[in-house]
Amino acid sequence: MELYDAINRRRDTRAEFTGAPIPDDVLTRVLSAAHAAPSVGMSQPWDFVLVRSRSTREAFHSHVASERDVFAASLSGERAETFNRIKIEGILESTLGIVVGYDPTRGGPAVLGRHAIADAGLYSAVLAIQNLWLAATAEGLGVGWVSFYREEFLSSLVGLPEQVRPIAWLCVGPVADLPDVPDLERFGWRHRSPLETVVHEERYSPR
Amino acid sequence: MELYDAINRRRDTRAEFTGAPIPDDVLTRVLSAAHAAPSVGMSQPWDFVLVRSRSTREAFHSHVASERDVFAASLSGERAETFNRIKIEGILESTLGIVVGYDPTRGGPAVLGRHAIADAGLYSAVLAIQNLWLAATAEGLGVGWVSFYREEFLSSLVGLPEQVRPIAWLCVGPVADLPDVPDLERFGWRHRSPLETVVHEERYSPR
Repeated sequence: MELYDAINRRRDTRAEFTGAPIPDDVLTRVLSAAHAAPSVGMSQPWDFVLVRSRSTREAFHSHVASERDVFAASLSGERAETFNRIKIEGILESTLGIVVGYDPTRGGPAVLGRHAIADAGLYSAVLAIQNLWLAATAEGLGVGWVSFYREEFLSSLVGLPEQVRPIAWLCVGPVADLPDVPDLERFGWRHRSPLETVVHEERYSPR
Repeated sequence: MELYDAINRRRDTRAEFTGAPIPDDVLTRVLSAAHAAPSVGMSQPWDFVLVRSRSTREAFHSHVASERDVFAASLSGERAETFNRIKIEGILESTLGIVVGYDPTRGGPAVLGRHAIADAGLYSAVLAIQNLWLAATAEGLGVGWVSFYREEFLSSLVGLPEQVRPIAWLCVGPVADLPDVPDLERFGWRHRSPLETVVHEERYSPR
C-alpha cells in the first residue's frame, strides 16, 4: 500500500474486529516495521508482549470497563450521553493484544541524545507504535489503542519488570472494514481541525 | 512510495542536507500527514512552528553545540572518541526547522482516553512526528530529530506559550541521499538488535 493511503486509511478500531487469525508472516512484517522505527541514540527501547490468552484479555477488559465508568462519571449532559454511545475498545473481539513497553535501560549507560530530554526514549517507543499501526493498516488489519487503564495494573498483568513502563495496549486483528470517518467524529464527540490551525510561521502565534 | 519502503528508507539525517527549497505542495502534504495522525480523544494536540530564519537557527545551533559539549563531557575513552566523530545535527544546512509542540489544553476539558494516562496526549504528538517523517521520506526529504537542547531554551526561542511543551526540533529538507545504514551504526556507536529480542509471548520474559 502507498504510504499516504496507509496514513489516510488508518483508523483507531474498536467495533470492526472479526477475530480471524493473523498469519505469522503478516505479524512478523508488522512487528518488524515497529522495530525499524527511529530511536534516540539507536536505543530501540521498546518491548512488545503478544497477548492471546483469553483469561488475560478478560482481566484487562474488566479493568478497562471500570476505568470507563470513572471517566463517564466525570461527564454530564450531552457529553455523558454522547460518550455512552461510543465503544472504546475491542479487547475481546480482536485477535491479539500487544502491550508496548518502554525500557529506559536499553541502549547502554549514556544514550546519545537523551541527556537533556529524559523523555526522548519514551518518544522513541511511541514512534514504533505509529510504524506498527501503519503497517497493520497496509496488511488489512485494524489497530485500536486502549488507554483506559492504570499502568500498575497492566504491568502486573503481563509481568513487566520495574524498569519497563507500559505505554499502550493495542488491539490488533483482521477487521470487517475500516470506516472512512473516525468513530469519535461519527458519534459526534469531536471533529477534526483544519491544518492551518496548528501551523505557525517562524514563531508560535495564538489562534 | 510504498509504506514498507518509506519505513525502511527513513533515516535520521544530519550530514546530507542540500539546503534546496521545499516546494509548498510538498510541505503541505508532509504537514497534512502529521495532522492525520491518531490522537487521544481526537484532541490533535500538536503544533508545528516552521523556522526558516537564519538568526533563529543560528541561536538554536549554538545552544545545541553547548549541549553537545555537556554530553561529550560525560564520556571517556573509546565512547568519547566515537562520539567525537559523529555529526549530531543539520540545523543550518537543512532547509527548514520544524518545532513540534504538545498542547495539553487542546481537545476540551475532558479528553476521552486521557484521564488514566496523563501522557496519552504527549504520545499523540509523537505519533504525528512519525507520520511527518515517513511522508518526508516518501517526498525525498531528509528529517533529523535534534534532542540536544533544553526545553525552556527552545520554548523561549520560538515563543511557545506556557502550556505548550516543545517535544522536537526537526531538521527537514532535500538531501543528497539517504544512507542505507544509520549514522550511529556506520560510526560504530550502536548496532541494531534482532526483532526476537523485543518480542514476548503472553508475558514479559527477561532476555
